[in-house]
Amino acid sequence: MKKRILIVGGVAGGATAAARLRRLDEQSEIIVFERGEYISFANCGLPYYIGDVIKERSSLLVQTVEGMSKKFNLDIRNFSEVESIDRQNKKIKIKNLKSGEVYEEKYDDLILSPGASPIKPPIKGIDEAKSLFTLRNMKDTDEIRAYVDENLPKSAVVIGGGFIGVEMAENLHERGVKVSLVEMMDQIMAPLDFEMASILHNHVKENGVDLILKDGVAEFKNHGTKVVLQSGKEIDTDMIILAIGVKPENKLAKDAGLDLGDRGGIKVDEYLRTNDKNIYAIGDAIEVIDYVNKKPTMIPLAWPANRQGRLVADNIYGKNRKYNGTLGTSVAKVFHMTASTTGNNEKTLKRLGIKYEVAHIHPKSHAGYYPGALPIAFKLTFNPEDGTIYGAQGVGYDGVEKRIDVIATAIKAGLKVEDLQDLELAYAPPYSSAKDPVNMLGYVATNIMEGSLKQIQWYEVDEVIEKGSLFIDVREVLETEMGYIEGTVNIPLGELREHLNEFPKDKPIYVTCQVGLRGYLACRLLELNGFKAINLDGGYRTYACVSD
Amino acid sequence: MKKRILIVGGVAGGATAAARLRRLDEQSEIIVFERGEYISFANCGLPYYIGDVIKERSSLLVQTVEGMSKKFNLDIRNFSEVESIDRQNKKIKIKNLKSGEVYEEKYDDLILSPGASPIKPPIKGIDEAKSLFTLRNMKDTDEIRAYVDENLPKSAVVIGGGFIGVEMAENLHERGVKVSLVEMMDQIMAPLDFEMASILHNHVKENGVDLILKDGVAEFKNHGTKVVLQSGKEIDTDMIILAIGVKPENKLAKDAGLDLGDRGGIKVDEYLRTNDKNIYAIGDAIEVIDYVNKKPTMIPLAWPANRQGRLVADNIYGKNRKYNGTLGTSVAKVFHMTASTTGNNEKTLKRLGIKYEVAHIHPKSHAGYYPGALPIAFKLTFNPEDGTIYGAQGVGYDGVEKRIDVIATAIKAGLKVEDLQDLELAYAPPYSSAKDPVNMLGYVATNIMEGSLKQIQWYEVDEVIEKGSLFIDVREVLETEMGYIEGTVNIPLGELREHLNEFPKDKPIYVTCQVGLRGYLACRLLELNGFKAINLDGGYRTYACVSD
Ligand SMILES: Cc1cc2nc3c(=O)[nH]c(=O)nc-3n(C[C@H](O)[C@H](O)[C@H](O)COP(=O)(O)OP(=O)(O)OC[C@H]3O[C@@H](n4cnc5c(N)ncnc54)[C@H](O)[C@@H]3O)c2cc1C
Ligand SMILES: Cc1cc2nc3c(=O)[nH]c(=O)nc-3n(C[C@H](O)[C@H](O)[C@H](O)COP(=O)(O)OP(=O)(O)OC[C@H]3O[C@@H](n4cnc5c(N)ncnc54)[C@H](O)[C@@H]3O)c2cc1C
Ligand SMILES: CC(C)(COP(=O)(O)OP(=O)(O)OC[C@H]1O[C@@H](n2cnc3c(N)ncnc32)[C@H](O)[C@@H]1OP(=O)(O)O)[C@@H](O)C(=O)NCCC(=O)NCCS
Ligand SMILES: CC(C)(COP(=O)(O)OP(=O)(O)OC[C@H]1O[C@@H](n2cnc3c(N)ncnc32)[C@H](O)[C@@H]1OP(=O)(O)O)[C@@H](O)C(=O)NCCC(=O)NCCS
Repeated sequence: MKKRILIVGGVAGGATAAARLRRLDEQSEIIVFERGEYISFANCGLPYYIGDVIKERSSLLVQTVEGMSKKFNLDIRNFSEVESIDRQNKKIKIKNLKSGEVYEEKYDDLILSPGASPIKPPIKGIDEAKSLFTLRNMKDTDEIRAYVDENLPKSAVVIGGGFIGVEMAENLHERGVKVSLVEMMDQIMAPLDFEMASILHNHVKENGVDLILKDGVAEFKNHGTKVVLQSGKEIDTDMIILAIGVKPENKLAKDAGLDLGDRGGIKVDEYLRTNDKNIYAIGDAIEVIDYVNKKPTMIPLAWPANRQGRLVADNIYGKNRKYNGTLGTSVAKVFHMTASTTGNNEKTLKRLGIKYEVAHIHPKSHAGYYPGALPIAFKLTFNPEDGTIYGAQGVGYDGVEKRIDVIATAIKAGLKVEDLQDLELAYAPPYSSAKDPVNMLGYVATNIMEGSLKQIQWYEVDEVIEKGSLFIDVREVLETEMGYIEGTVNIPLGELREHLNEFPKDKPIYVTCQVGLRGYLACRLLELNGFKAINLDGGYRTYACVSD
Repeated sequence: MKKRILIVGGVAGGATAAARLRRLDEQSEIIVFERGEYISFANCGLPYYIGDVIKERSSLLVQTVEGMSKKFNLDIRNFSEVESIDRQNKKIKIKNLKSGEVYEEKYDDLILSPGASPIKPPIKGIDEAKSLFTLRNMKDTDEIRAYVDENLPKSAVVIGGGFIGVEMAENLHERGVKVSLVEMMDQIMAPLDFEMASILHNHVKENGVDLILKDGVAEFKNHGTKVVLQSGKEIDTDMIILAIGVKPENKLAKDAGLDLGDRGGIKVDEYLRTNDKNIYAIGDAIEVIDYVNKKPTMIPLAWPANRQGRLVADNIYGKNRKYNGTLGTSVAKVFHMTASTTGNNEKTLKRLGIKYEVAHIHPKSHAGYYPGALPIAFKLTFNPEDGTIYGAQGVGYDGVEKRIDVIATAIKAGLKVEDLQDLELAYAPPYSSAKDPVNMLGYVATNIMEGSLKQIQWYEVDEVIEKGSLFIDVREVLETEMGYIEGTVNIPLGELREHLNEFPKDKPIYVTCQVGLRGYLACRLLELNGFKAINLDGGYRTYACVSD
């Protein structure tokens, strides 16, 4: 079935679709239009090239116009901006950005993969700011890198604590630039919950970044050499990176009357088709369904763009393959740490009014007795009634995203928290523990569901202490010397049984330890002896993340 | 429900069961009998302590008799060998190995977790061999370490290429010992298929180990200072490690008339109960059901022992929790490489006459443009009719077991190969690619199932070449200079379309490239142009692993 298929955008979604289309059919005419000079470049590598971690610019260019055209027999047109869609006549208007020529092409099927563009709000002074950059493509990258290479800036303000902002902070720091990272929210890396992000806050600061939370930009002064924050604080700077998020490139779609979602994403059905049956849309530009809560959302990540690129090609050839929503599994390197998430966090569940429970654990990356084991903070969110896994977050140095990948797999497979106990994961001392952290999350969550573990969260501690409840810290005396919760009494676990007669039977006893494990053991011991015991989820460590 | 529960064996299975039993009930009397001096030690860490990678002996002792007794209110008796079980009267006979005293204890429930012991066949000269060791427990470890510390051996023969043998080879090498590794089969690490193990063979040799395959020990001479192989080869050595496998510690069970499997494992039902309703058995000593092929097997690994330890405690308290069989997920560090497996390999499937297909890929550990990306060899086995995933193997430097864990999860969740395409895994350049290797395995396997990818295996190449079939190498000319399959013609992928008129339409055309990807692209191109095309699975790289 020979077709004429036009694709708008030649990078993650568009290039993938083109390649797959050709693998399905040799006869079709496939034309890719790309506004920029380059197709198929590694967006995700851009910050690292600026940081000179990636040395070769050419390695960012996964495919070239010539190479890919030849390999896949494609008509790839760079410097070609698609200006409008004429749905009635099934044709688009293209402007050749080099010659200025405007022309039309007809299509049987049209794929939109135009991506998203960095948000640039009308902050006072933004247009006059000289060394203010956003980062999306090769051109932006070349500009930033050239600026850094030539001007050797001493300072930079990165605005926005999302993953691109954090990656830029890290990479500019790599280049010897003193970075201030400014974030309006009380935390960076929004897919994490606050207490999890707090671990990163400490780490980012330890690495010499001036982290400014709960403050936004009010104004850029002196051509952008001074950033004025809403708090009144002023920062002198040699350069500014604006990374406060992206918005879908929806102009083409909007002008053509295609349906858009509330946040501007192009609406598609589960076959990635817009409300025009010959127009498909994929990637950052579309609205997707949140795999967990089934609500529309925007998740501008590379996996969905690549996956959708392949599916859309299949669907154009009648394979009817569904895209079942996006989990939002993500990972980011934050200096020496790794932060990874999948599914819904506590904030999201709270906002949507979904009933949930959480569990925090702090296992080691691998067997504690084997060199190099470092703690990871994990948090699981789940439905305490039926055990549905809602999401997971991990922050640590090593082995973080591996466990998140397993949980992402479990979520997609519809496994319940109790099934996590049964996952048989690879174990040898350099890699994990005989009970993997994922198993442990399964154990803890199942205990919560079954009522054999009752717990409070870090944010409930102060209230409990204020009420004067008995709050026992069951760590060894020595451990408490490194810090403890004011108002707790220290009785090491091994001695607890000797003190049972001192405890009240009518009131709940609160328990804490370092990470929650011994607290749980103490709670079991107390409960089985007729007391009502409640454990501090995640122990002193989770509590201390936040109060640090 | 106060019970008297006796446990035989105080390490992985036994200690875990004891701890969990106490968390379920404070009243029961729980007595743990351990023949050795130590309970709850890190078996899996032993080789690394000998290699001085783990420096502190004490870190191997996860729990001590005193500490654990106190924490869990247990009666733990070390140096106490259980000699027999009187099922009729529900009591056991124990010998105190220090005092020689023999006494009895009654039980309501008895848990057997006696483990397995190293196989020591009656090889000529074995009893006279002086510095011949096996490795199972702290005592063995202390002996080997003391021997190495005191005698500074220059050479060692390690017999057996299983994971303990390989770990010992590596750790003795760490101590400056020249190691010969002798294995009867044509490969080390039996859970891998031959071509996958071959990658390790090269690596082990590169690291200075004298690897001797397809040869067994015939005799030990001169008090074990000379090892004579079946081939006649003789090796002079300062020490010998015998690591040819383990056999279940089944004497107690056998003498008591408990059912044993063909290979001597204690038979249990899915609740881990033997044919005596008051006797349970767990860990290395039992026969388990292979999760994939449902046949009885023996899988002596720590995860199953730990998992079963917990389940058995639950079942003693009437929770009726099933153990659903063992996948055999494993990982081992082999010098700088990692080998990891889950489920059934090709050898097993072939032996059992199960219809299967395989797919080989060689993706990078993470995005190729980000520093440090190194190739991993993955192999997937699956049912080509319904897509059931049978197993997976990976050999590489980094990110290997992470993908195996994901596939192990997929298998336990009953996902099919096509579901692997939809797994949304964490991606950023330092961690993975936008299409994770697991997704890629899903793509390739699904293509095979759907008939859009036809392939031959590395072991079929020579026959195809001999028959004189057209075999095209679609790599760039430069690549072929690093090695190629004799008898192939080189036509780079980008030029293939120009040569179509030269190819036969009536005979299959065979294609190869470096790893299989471009070969697949070439096959699609050829097939869609009316040719019959067959790809070499895994490309030149898989082929070369073996022919090296
Ligand atoms: C700095 C950075 C780092 C990132 N890091 C990660 C990461 O670590 N992990 C991750 O999962 N994701 C990451 N991403 C996100 C990921 O790159 C995107 O999700 C993905 O590229 C989206 O694919 P797409 O095809 O929708 O858009 P793009 O890849 O952006 O491609 C869209 C293309 O369409 C072109 N275009 C737009 N409109 C038109 C038009 N009218 N005519 C012609 N051409 C047009 C654009 O020029 C653009 O090249 C990162 C993104 C950036 C910018
Ligand atoms: C060197 C080495 C490295 C390993 N590395 C790994 C690895 O990396 N990954 C992995 O998954 N697995 C590994 N294993 C395997 C893992 O340690 C075992 O699978 C696990 O310990 C089995 O638990 P178990 O309770 O069945 O037996 P064990 O842990 O061996 O405990 C059995 C105990 O029972 C005692 N006992 C036996 N009979 C009696 C009796 N009659 N009376 C009293 N006591 C008795 C024994 O003395 C022994 O201490 C390794 C094993 C060894 C030896
Ligand atoms: C480079 C690009 C064009 C590749 O698209 P692609 O051809 O679909 O992807 P790959 O090169 O990874 O190849 C995947 C194909 O090869 C097949 N394949 C992979 N390894 C194989 C092997 N060893 N044997 C056989 N087939 C194999 C897969 O099955 C798949 O084919 P299918 O879709 O027909 O099933 C596209 O991904 C791109 O532009 N990437 C850069 C932009 C980007 O993604 N940015 C965001 C992240 S930085
Ligand atoms: C040390 C040993 C006795 C521990 O047994 P254990 O108490 O079952 O295991 P752990 O210490 O890991 O604790 C697990 C328990 O703590 C709970 N837990 C773990 N982290 C928790 C947290 N942060 N908050 C609350 N509870 C937590 C788990 O739910 C589980 O309890 P449950 O079984 O009642 O659900 C046993 O594993 C052992 O002997 N190991 C060494 C031998 C060995 O395994 N060798 C082979 C590998 S080298």
